[in-house]
Amino acid sequence: MSAVPVAIVGASGYAGGELLRLLLAHPGVEVRQVTSESRAGEPAAAAHPNLRRRTTLTFSRMDDLHPCDTAFLCLPHGRTVEVIDGVLARSERVIDLSADFRLRRAEDYVRWYGFAHPRPDLLGAFVYGIPELHREAMRGARLVSSAGCNATAVILALHPLFKHGVADTRCTVVEAKVGSSEGGAGVSPASHHPVRANCVRSYKPTGHRHTAEMLQELGLSGDSRIHFSATAVDLVRGILATCHVFLNNRVDEKQIWKLYRQEYGAEPFVRIVKERDGAFRYPEPKLLAGTNFCDIGFELDGDGNRLVVMSALDNLGKGAAGQAVQAFNLMHGLDETAGLGFAGLHPV
Amino acid sequence: MSAVPVAIVGASGYAGGELLRLLLAHPGVEVRQVTSESRAGEPAAAAHPNLRRRTTLTFSRMDDLHPCDTAFLCLPHGRTVEVIDGVLARSERVIDLSADFRLRRAEDYVRWYGFAHPRPDLLGAFVYGIPELHREAMRGARLVSSAGCNATAVILALHPLFKHGVADTRCTVVEAKVGSSEGGAGVSPASHHPVRANCVRSYKPTGHRHTAEMLQELGLSGDSRIHFSATAVDLVRGILATCHVFLNNRVDEKQIWKLYRQEYGAEPFVRIVKERDGAFRYPEPKLLAGTNFCDIGFELDGDGNRLVVMSALDNLGKGAAGQAVQAFNLMHGLDETAGLGFAGLHPV
Amino acid sequence: MSAVPVAIVGASGYAGGELLRLLLAHPGVEVRQVTSESRAGEPAAAAHPNLRRRTTLTFSRMDDLHPCDTAFLCLPHGRTVEVIDGVLARSERVIDLSADFRLRRAEDYVRWYGFAHPRPDLLGAFVYGIPELHREAMRGARLVSSAGCNATAVILALHPLFKHGVADTRCTVVEAKVGSSEGGAGVSPASHHPVRANCVRSYKPTGHRHTAEMLQELGLSGDSRIHFSATAVDLVRGILATCHVFLNNRVDEKQIWKLYRQEYGAEPFVRIVKERDGAFRYPEPKLLAGTNFCDIGFELDGDGNRLVVMSALDNLGKGAAGQAVQAFNLMHGLDETAGLGFAGLHPV
Amino acid sequence: MSAVPVAIVGASGYAGGELLRLLLAHPGVEVRQVTSESRAGEPAAAAHPNLRRRTTLTFSRMDDLHPCDTAFLCLPHGRTVEVIDGVLARSERVIDLSADFRLRRAEDYVRWYGFAHPRPDLLGAFVYGIPELHREAMRGARLVSSAGCNATAVILALHPLFKHGVADTRCTVVEAKVGSSEGGAGVSPASHHPVRANCVRSYKPTGHRHTAEMLQELGLSGDSRIHFSATAVDLVRGILATCHVFLNNRVDEKQIWKLYRQEYGAEPFVRIVKERDGAFRYPEPKLLAGTNFCDIGFELDGDGNRLVVMSALDNLGKGAAGQAVQAFNLMHGLDETAGLGFAGLHPV
Repeated sequence: MSAVPVAIVGASGYAGGELLRLLLAHPGVEVRQVTSESRAGEPAAAAHPNLRRRTTLTFSRMDDLHPCDTAFLCLPHGRTVEVIDGVLARSERVIDLSADFRLRRAEDYVRWYGFAHPRPDLLGAFVYGIPELHREAMRGARLVSSAGCNATAVILALHPLFKHGVADTRCTVVEAKVGSSEGGAGVSPASHHPVRANCVRSYKPTGHRHTAEMLQELGLSGDSRIHFSATAVDLVRGILATCHVFLNNRVDEKQIWKLYRQEYGAEPFVRIVKERDGAFRYPEPKLLAGTNFCDIGFELDGDGNRLVVMSALDNLGKGAAGQAVQAFNLMHGLDETAGLGFAGLHPV
Repeated sequence: MSAVPVAIVGASGYAGGELLRLLLAHPGVEVRQVTSESRAGEPAAAAHPNLRRRTTLTFSRMDDLHPCDTAFLCLPHGRTVEVIDGVLARSERVIDLSADFRLRRAEDYVRWYGFAHPRPDLLGAFVYGIPELHREAMRGARLVSSAGCNATAVILALHPLFKHGVADTRCTVVEAKVGSSEGGAGVSPASHHPVRANCVRSYKPTGHRHTAEMLQELGLSGDSRIHFSATAVDLVRGILATCHVFLNNRVDEKQIWKLYRQEYGAEPFVRIVKERDGAFRYPEPKLLAGTNFCDIGFELDGDGNRLVVMSALDNLGKGAAGQAVQAFNLMHGLDETAGLGFAGLHPV
Repeated sequence: MSAVPVAIVGASGYAGGELLRLLLAHPGVEVRQVTSESRAGEPAAAAHPNLRRRTTLTFSRMDDLHPCDTAFLCLPHGRTVEVIDGVLARSERVIDLSADFRLRRAEDYVRWYGFAHPRPDLLGAFVYGIPELHREAMRGARLVSSAGCNATAVILALHPLFKHGVADTRCTVVEAKVGSSEGGAGVSPASHHPVRANCVRSYKPTGHRHTAEMLQELGLSGDSRIHFSATAVDLVRGILATCHVFLNNRVDEKQIWKLYRQEYGAEPFVRIVKERDGAFRYPEPKLLAGTNFCDIGFELDGDGNRLVVMSALDNLGKGAAGQAVQAFNLMHGLDETAGLGFAGLHPV
Repeated sequence: MSAVPVAIVGASGYAGGELLRLLLAHPGVEVRQVTSESRAGEPAAAAHPNLRRRTTLTFSRMDDLHPCDTAFLCLPHGRTVEVIDGVLARSERVIDLSADFRLRRAEDYVRWYGFAHPRPDLLGAFVYGIPELHREAMRGARLVSSAGCNATAVILALHPLFKHGVADTRCTVVEAKVGSSEGGAGVSPASHHPVRANCVRSYKPTGHRHTAEMLQELGLSGDSRIHFSATAVDLVRGILATCHVFLNNRVDEKQIWKLYRQEYGAEPFVRIVKERDGAFRYPEPKLLAGTNFCDIGFELDGDGNRLVVMSALDNLGKGAAGQAVQAFNLMHGLDETAGLGFAGLHPV
């Protein structure tokens, strides 16, 4: 197998750096180019010190993008759509990590992003980037739009329940606990260490944009609701989404197990984590830093009709770069797990 | 004013230590005795190194308890009820920080604690320890049962809404993010630093015992539900409870403001924290370490009928020792804020 | 006693905020004014959220400084000297927390700060702000220059040994572990939470400016050396200085105890912390957050002639605002501990 | 290449778990057996939750050890020497991660460990496990004793200077900042999260046992001294050793660069990290979690004759399991970097 030549556009941020780390170690990839407008001319390892001695690549400008097979785009939301034509002229395939092509309907951009999408014609052309839901569409696809990190955690947690009609879709409450590397947020007073350290801080109690992806991918509309809130915690990488699901009928844990096994039993990157005891009996994001896993657990409320589903992942891994590589593997007919073998650390 | 002589029974744990810190600096108190079975004979400062040079008290055994005006009991749940008669024989007043006298109905102990309460006759004798709800009953009371830390955060968050019939009581979802000093949990594999550090860990997704207090104090029964889950985060002191409340009718933020101001506008230890912007625009528990504050904020979901209420406190402060001192002040007709003047630190 | 009217100039930073917290609770002080050029017009509590409901003060501009008894200056290094005349025209006494008047010799500013001091005439007029060394000079003084945080930790650790000729002054090695609120460092890429969290980062291996204060106050010159290095750790408040001292002659621990007791036995804010066992057998900065303590411990190397002295403090407390208040108390003939009663928290 | 069959003895601890993670992903290894007395019968993934879905191995007892090519021993100090004969009867090669065979001279065990070594005959048979110093001896060796984590950091930092006679060996001061997974310390009151979190705690100011290895491997004796102190910081994995070296003669940075490049320029796992600016201009242990790197940087004191050398590694990686795998690769003539390709994460 000859290596697939790829480029990472917008490679100086955290998602771009994680992609670079994964792709440099990927047996079927050759990273030909990395671009960054702000750091053009600098070595990639200056932005990503973990890659010292791993690469001699230097950032170039996007204008100097050379032809390649696949371009990974890690640009800010709103910027991708401006450059997409230029990128497509030079690369066969595109995996976009921004939100610009995640939603299929232009009106959803107006509602959730306050953004009149300039290229509604392209919205249907991208496959939504969660392989567990869209694996077949990804095989051979040219365009994939990688899913949001919170959206991935929540969609994977809820998909089996919603698909099989077990959940009451009118009211699902999700509380996500999120690390500081999420969302590509830059240097700011709120990210200053004395302010951000030790925090437990509700930063988006209502109206989080990732909700739009959840509704779309879970097939919800009308009076269905995902009540999503996000809280910042003192962690760099990681998301734990705690989903409070109300059930249409009483079920027992065996039935829940069966649903999750049916949907995810063969999935290489989704693990059901539910043990009788121990500190790690439920999903724990810190174990997943650097991996492409999404760990899912659940507990049934003895009293009522509530199912609590917990879902953990690395926002830069399965929530961004890892999932993009998984999509890349599918697009190219490679082993879906290629380059994604890191097991995660413990203790950590 | 002559100082009130007090004793702390079970003073070597974290709640006992925090009480000791507060009472040593309280202008109207003389701490006469501190007991600990496991550390009898040792200086109190050996267990509480922050109190070096602040006290020369030495732990004695509970059997040697001398007469005092007020005994603060910081014993494990189930132990208090065994010793309460002996304590009452030697102290005029008791403030109990365990769960043994929080619930008024013996059947609730069976349901939530799996515990056949041996002294149901005493259950009605204790005032439930949240001054914002039971201030008048506390004035001159002999017996107060201090509220649970999570319960305090949730009850204070929801009380104005439930009292005024604004909330749909059939479904309220609460996610608490909790520090490692909560609940008096001792040394264990789960509390080992390499395991507990960096964690975001659902440890009680359903069935948390503090739910019983919430239902009781919010006046809920029948098909009313508080769906409470608790998640451990990498913090020592602090709780942030995020409460998803569904409203009976559409309201606007002004009306919510009005309700909270009406209930808490004159409260010395409840602050409404809701600002337009900034990292601290909503409640943040780290700012409250060592204080007796409960900070409450809220955001109304533009889309639906959900109100997100955030409530923060120090589980050892307003959630335990601080609130006990506040009750003590009321019981003795002292200034309610005496000994509780610490403003909290920033940055921290 | 009538309250002393004071102003804090440059009150929107961390040291200014800590001063404000302490002075608002000080029984002998009335804070009349707080200034900030960048936040003029905003409430002080907007910058210092821990002071919500504690003050209604609003920042004014320094140009609008009203006459007061004592002005505390918390301006950036180099700025104080520019405004000192204006301040002195309006306030009887000045306590400066910058470095501008810490060194007595203008040439030391050239050497350590690369700064030609514009007002060498004033250098001798300020008392160096460590009360344990300059208590008598502070009584009734008009001008005090508060010591650097690292300098305070190191000077207090070494002073008894150097004063009594026990240490070989030619080579003392000091490694300080420092929290992120030190030095008034502002928002920067290095303080970004994903970068600064979990760090153990040597940021000033050689040439730290506080070394100049150490040499001056320990009376060192010629071939004497304090080899000082600073390492950033994942903590917001706190410094632990580990000082490796080489002894002129073999001594035993009793003699060391005796020296420290002799110098500090009567000091209200210096504690010798040295226990046989336990996690807190040596000084631990986290216990000191918010306090004015400097805890000092030591261990004698059985093998050689090395004494390891450990010194802990809160860089914003004894290392800045706390010590400034202690000086203020001495300048005004007040109880030296007034306003400094906070014991510190445990656990934390 | 057929896979080398190996066993890990004492595999339920942190070093054993890290070895298991590395060896499961090693292309030339088959892990045949893992033993644990305390967890015999349990799945390995129950102790090491990061290995869920990576292995179905179950812990057996050491008594049931089957023949294998190489046994990795991760037993407590003092236990290895008791079982070594039994292990050698069943495995061709042994890599021991305990301290039992690190020192060549029995009297050093008496001095540093208070331990009369029962098998002095074996002390000379083990190669000391730092490949950068003993690569040739490792090729084809049967017995390797893996180096201590602190010892590795310090020896690699100082080796070029001491080998080339640049340093004054009479006085080198080393301050190590160490994470909580170091040394295999178990659950204890000192490791309890509320106690250990946020700590900066001198736990071994003098007399650390790893000093013996440093002296041995740096060839020091007589009046040479490594003054080593260790301080616990709020980190799980990682060591930063700050070494204060005094030079025999004035040198410039170029000469220092030259020495380090000469010794380590071809080393796959030692990187010289010294940049002009940026938060990561010097070694940072958090970047190295999970890797086999030792990053080394230095700064020359402009004033004096001091060189500060900073050395960072993962105590479970290059400080334990990673280095053991590196030794394994050399013993078997494999690519020295096999199984050690993980680059480390950023941000983290």
